Amino acid sequence: MGRDSYDEQLDRLTGILATMSREAGTAIRGASVALLDVDRHAAETVIADDAILARRRAEAEAMIPEVLVRHQPVASDLRLVVCALRIAGALDRMGDLAVHVAKVVLMRHPVGVVPQPAVPVLTEMADAAARIADKATMVLATRDPLDAMQLGLDDDEVDAAQERLLSMLVSGWSYGVESAIDLALVGRYYERYADQAVNVARQVVYLVTGTVRL
Amino acid sequence: MGRDSYDEQLDRLTGILATMSREAGTAIRGASVALLDVDRHAAETVIADDAILARRRAEAEAMIPEVLVRHQPVASDLRLVVCALRIAGALDRMGDLAVHVAKVVLMRHPVGVVPQPAVPVLTEMADAAARIADKATMVLATRDPLDAMQLGLDDDEVDAAQERLLSMLVSGWSYGVESAIDLALVGRYYERYADQAVNVARQVVYLVTGTVRL
Repeated sequence: MGRDSYDEQLDRLTGILATMSREAGTAIRGASVALLDVDRHAAETVIADDAILARRRAEAEAMIPEVLVRHQPVASDLRLVVCALRIAGALDRMGDLAVHVAKVVLMRHPVGVVPQPAVPVLTEMADAAARIADKATMVLATRDPLDAMQLGLDDDEVDAAQERLLSMLVSGWSYGVESAIDLALVGRYYERYADQAVNVARQVVYLVTGTVRL
Repeated sequence: MGRDSYDEQLDRLTGILATMSREAGTAIRGASVALLDVDRHAAETVIADDAILARRRAEAEAMIPEVLVRHQPVASDLRLVVCALRIAGALDRMGDLAVHVAKVVLMRHPVGVVPQPAVPVLTEMADAAARIADKATMVLATRDPLDAMQLGLDDDEVDAAQERLLSMLVSGWSYGVESAIDLALVGRYYERYADQAVNVARQVVYLVTGTVRL
């Protein structure tokens, strides 16, 4: 196998990761619509589509043998393999976290999970999570460490919003303990989602530079 | 490189995974002591020791190039690589989840996180999590799919206990919303810990049989 067809294989692998990243973004957007618009159909779509992400992860993993067996890999190729597997894992988990949000929505439907006072902070988390997913997709395309650093800002925003949400829940929350627990968990799912997106970016930086700077 | 030294390398790799598994068990045990005995020192130890797990994961990942480059790998070797990376990732996450429990303890210290009525259910979760960690360690040693199936029982126990905990929190919990949120999150950390242990076992089954049965 020549270097060209090897490069083609790598392109196909990174193509799968880019697709997964877009799908993970679609998943969190759908989960946010389900959550904030009390949209049962959106929640069900997120849950149904999650199998696609899992399948793509398996597809990416299945390519690794091809890439390695038909080519004497050098150190940077092997770094790519480790990074690609970690990235596929992080993107799969992002999809799982969107599913967790969607499941909370379905569990309470037709009652909404987000009472009015929590709408702004959850909207902020939802928007930041969608943005960070888009940036992860971009970083997978550009492999630019400067782009990768941008994700930290959105991640900080999600963390700060989660802190505000928790403060709200523990100081005179008038919608009951069940609601508070639901929202604390939902907030945590967004927080973890953002963390995993940062993890994707971190792996891309490692891939390109050999060191993790994020 | 002969087959012998290749096998030695694989033994070293699986040895690292077995060590990680024992350490992940130690971590959740320490976190449970911290939680149930309001033991600050135990919590701090869990957090400090987590770096060791992360380092071992990196060590396991760093072995993959050696294993692959100096040997023409066959399909089962590559399955091993993918499984080993997934197992190392799952064990690392188990350590992270123990750290999450320990951090809740530190955040509330010297106040305890677990009021008396929740002690039995949290004790049950803690015991089941410790047992499931031990079984994951055993499965890594025996690679016996029947052993691997045993983990499902403990996982079910943790899930059922988490359901009981949540029911308790939402029906007349008299320790406040903050306490309810702390406990809902702690319960979820145990639940995820058990899930990841099942994931370890599932990877071992896949490694041995080429199919996932769990």
